[in-house]
Amino acid sequence: MRVKHGEIPDRQWQKRLHEIIFEADTPAGKAFDVVLICAIVLSVVVVILDSVGSYQAKFGGFLYAAEWFFTILFTIEYVFRLLSVRRPLRYAGSFFGWIDILSILPTYLSLLFPGVQYLLTVRILRLLRIFRVFKLTEYVSEAHILTTALRASARKIGVFLFAVLSLVTVIGSLIYVIEGEQNGFKDIPTSIYWAIVTLTTVGYGDLAPKTGLGQFFASIVMILGYGIIAVPTGIVTVELSKSARSTQHCPSCSAEGHDADALFCKYCSERL
Amino acid sequence: MRVKHGEIPDRQWQKRLHEIIFEADTPAGKAFDVVLICAIVLSVVVVILDSVGSYQAKFGGFLYAAEWFFTILFTIEYVFRLLSVRRPLRYAGSFFGWIDILSILPTYLSLLFPGVQYLLTVRILRLLRIFRVFKLTEYVSEAHILTTALRASARKIGVFLFAVLSLVTVIGSLIYVIEGEQNGFKDIPTSIYWAIVTLTTVGYGDLAPKTGLGQFFASIVMILGYGIIAVPTGIVTVELSKSARSTQHCPSCSAEGHDADALFCKYCSERL
Amino acid sequence: MRVKHGEIPDRQWQKRLHEIIFEADTPAGKAFDVVLICAIVLSVVVVILDSVGSYQAKFGGFLYAAEWFFTILFTIEYVFRLLSVRRPLRYAGSFFGWIDILSILPTYLSLLFPGVQYLLTVRILRLLRIFRVFKLTEYVSEAHILTTALRASARKIGVFLFAVLSLVTVIGSLIYVIEGEQNGFKDIPTSIYWAIVTLTTVGYGDLAPKTGLGQFFASIVMILGYGIIAVPTGIVTVELSKSARSTQHCPSCSAEGHDADALFCKYCSERL
Amino acid sequence: MRVKHGEIPDRQWQKRLHEIIFEADTPAGKAFDVVLICAIVLSVVVVILDSVGSYQAKFGGFLYAAEWFFTILFTIEYVFRLLSVRRPLRYAGSFFGWIDILSILPTYLSLLFPGVQYLLTVRILRLLRIFRVFKLTEYVSEAHILTTALRASARKIGVFLFAVLSLVTVIGSLIYVIEGEQNGFKDIPTSIYWAIVTLTTVGYGDLAPKTGLGQFFASIVMILGYGIIAVPTGIVTVELSKSARSTQHCPSCSAEGHDADALFCKYCSERL
Repeated sequence: MRVKHGEIPDRQWQKRLHEIIFEADTPAGKAFDVVLICAIVLSVVVVILDSVGSYQAKFGGFLYAAEWFFTILFTIEYVFRLLSVRRPLRYAGSFFGWIDILSILPTYLSLLFPGVQYLLTVRILRLLRIFRVFKLTEYVSEAHILTTALRASARKIGVFLFAVLSLVTVIGSLIYVIEGEQNGFKDIPTSIYWAIVTLTTVGYGDLAPKTGLGQFFASIVMILGYGIIAVPTGIVTVELSKSARSTQHCPSCSAEGHDADALFCKYCSERL
Repeated sequence: MRVKHGEIPDRQWQKRLHEIIFEADTPAGKAFDVVLICAIVLSVVVVILDSVGSYQAKFGGFLYAAEWFFTILFTIEYVFRLLSVRRPLRYAGSFFGWIDILSILPTYLSLLFPGVQYLLTVRILRLLRIFRVFKLTEYVSEAHILTTALRASARKIGVFLFAVLSLVTVIGSLIYVIEGEQNGFKDIPTSIYWAIVTLTTVGYGDLAPKTGLGQFFASIVMILGYGIIAVPTGIVTVELSKSARSTQHCPSCSAEGHDADALFCKYCSERL
Repeated sequence: MRVKHGEIPDRQWQKRLHEIIFEADTPAGKAFDVVLICAIVLSVVVVILDSVGSYQAKFGGFLYAAEWFFTILFTIEYVFRLLSVRRPLRYAGSFFGWIDILSILPTYLSLLFPGVQYLLTVRILRLLRIFRVFKLTEYVSEAHILTTALRASARKIGVFLFAVLSLVTVIGSLIYVIEGEQNGFKDIPTSIYWAIVTLTTVGYGDLAPKTGLGQFFASIVMILGYGIIAVPTGIVTVELSKSARSTQHCPSCSAEGHDADALFCKYCSERL
Repeated sequence: MRVKHGEIPDRQWQKRLHEIIFEADTPAGKAFDVVLICAIVLSVVVVILDSVGSYQAKFGGFLYAAEWFFTILFTIEYVFRLLSVRRPLRYAGSFFGWIDILSILPTYLSLLFPGVQYLLTVRILRLLRIFRVFKLTEYVSEAHILTTALRASARKIGVFLFAVLSLVTVIGSLIYVIEGEQNGFKDIPTSIYWAIVTLTTVGYGDLAPKTGLGQFFASIVMILGYGIIAVPTGIVTVELSKSARSTQHCPSCSAEGHDADALFCKYCSERL
């Protein structure tokens, strides 16, 4: 984690700051992280409550103040983060650097574009640091298995998505021609939206075929969706099954990925 | 099962009571359990019928009486249960102890808060004892495989739930900003509710995007939901597949992965 | 198949009839089956068209006549079937015997209870004979793998269904208390129906929570449904995976069910 | 790919044309493909925009002209494709040949049947050539695994579909008799449509049972749908899992089940 945030700096005050902000081994570092997590959760709650009419009517002023309070707090924190790393630009460009900036920007932008401040809920992603603070390494390893499986299936899922997007375009056009504007399918983009709503089995019902032919066609699409929804499930299952496999290392060539029942290394034939 | 309910007591009448209430080996114990099961089913039916307007109009008085009858019956049973175990507090704090108390409390509370008595349907969980009475050990072992698989996947599912909850918060805020209150997305909590309805492919349709941008964004969320719904399925399948295999080691070649019914190692023919 | 339909009878005319009706090896038998399949498909189409208002207005008389024509045809066929087997009662009690009687009964009953004749579509199940006629043995073996997998998972699915039914009862009662009759949840049965609609991710939207608390509770139910829908999928996948495994026989003890990578019989240690 | 498009012709100009149109190794061939892909994407965008009322009002004339421009372009391309292969008829009858003709026909047909031009979005399928141009061979191999798995499950899915279609016919008739025309189930085809909407868990809600008996029956259908949706998922998962493994045999111990990247037998260490 630390490596991703730029290397530890040389100067003494910077080193100390880095320890507090980026590490959780010292009491000060741990206290900082706990306070940070509370602040994040609170600030997200403030944003959510601010959107609810009845709360805004009663506590509007307080919620507005709290929003600015947290934004300024996170802005100061962001500046200190940049100060405490050796290469501030590299940190600013990292995943957590982007999340940090996206977590304060909307409040400032809301001065120009009212309503944008509701995007502040993106702050919840900062909670991903939680795993580091509480040393939830077991959870990290579980998350690792999940992400490995998802990354390994990325290409298969890419091919699959391309196929699905082509399919919904064609299906959307067909239903547009079959049902037409008088039945709510007012243009092809809307019809493609219907095709996605149907194929993913979400089925809002805001658009539904009304003619007999349209219902017949929709039935075919739904049964097709049966098979289609099975594909990503199958892909993820197979990959999860693989990445859950024994992580045995070969003593000779240290290759990984052997089956649980392998007796010899499948790459160099050494006995495992 | 018995071990969880506190140890068998010393005194003779307590021992006898314990045999009848907690065990199903003696005729009296079996008869008690059969009567109990009938009472549970009947009392749940009474509660359900009581909620239906037409039945309540006709049989309101009778159903009310039956509700109190069953509640007093289960209260007496609960007292006897506590009397028949050596450590009543430990039993009261166990899973079945809690279910027992939750099965009688709503009737008493309904005197203060009308309507609470409908929660009495929680009594149906008492039927889980059914497996013990009829010695449905094969079903118990199947249930065991299921729960083992689910428990083994608990951590993975925890990580997954954390990710999903963060995701729906961000998605909910985005759709709130995109669609706004004029299209029914009246606040962020409601919008998060929409995000969950969409990602889980439930799709009631009480809230649905109406603007073009909203429908485009919803389409992305739905296709995302494709991949997301695949994850828990994949996790459970892999764990089920694992827990369906025994973890026996071959004493000679120490190979794993033998089926539960294997007598000899499938790799070196050694007796397991 | 033939064995299930009672043994081949002794008398010559009966033998001949049996050959035509139950077997498909002779030209007459094959012709009979082809005619039968056409009659079944046509009669189902007639029933379906009869329910469509515009067709009934135009061809009502013809469709009514056709319905009686096919019913009398199938009745005669049924009588001949009974005549051609040695033990008619045994055939009448078999799966196909029941389908046969259910395929003709509704027409006669419709004289007493108008509308019942639409149940004649059950005739479509008679098409299952199709696999026998066209010797689609490969399909039969695929169907066999599917049904084996489903039967093997029956007990697990039984435990699962029991758990789901308990769950929806409790969930239904809770939403009934939370939302109440003013929001459409008019009684507990209706609320249980809502719980099933939600947990299975069907989500009609005819009933949807309107209060904030109700939507919060529904969100939990939906996320729960995520995990729950994964369970039957996992069960069926694991069983399919097992029943798709090599059907290798041990040369010594002829046991089946060895893994594809097994070298020795897991029951008697013989080399495979 | 080239083999499917007919063999490379003899004459020099034809050879050159074939290189440009069908191959992507030469600079001219690559440029042609890149231009083609842009034209396809643009033409699909034009068709989609043409269906949107507000765009058509403003740019109707331009979009109409663009549609004809692309159609004439693709017609010329199609003629050149036919000219550049040795056996034009064989190409015209191939998968891509059909897509090519379906991509230009609707514009011409729209002169006779207005509205048909929206089917031009089928052009998006021509993008499948993209994999060839950019040598996305890894994606092709992923697509290959997917299609192999789907083809291998085709028969199982066929049996499954036959069962599902019989089931929805019977379910549709039953709900038609239970709910009847006064609740929206106006005929059996509509009721079968409802059965498919429910079993696939799409659940639009345009049709939903209103009587108690209807809701009870629908609940059973939905829980049935639980199990049914698990079947195609299970089938595809098992096939994917199989096709992800190589079917290599060990020359020494003839064990199967080695991973695609294995160099040595994992059971006896022999070089594969």
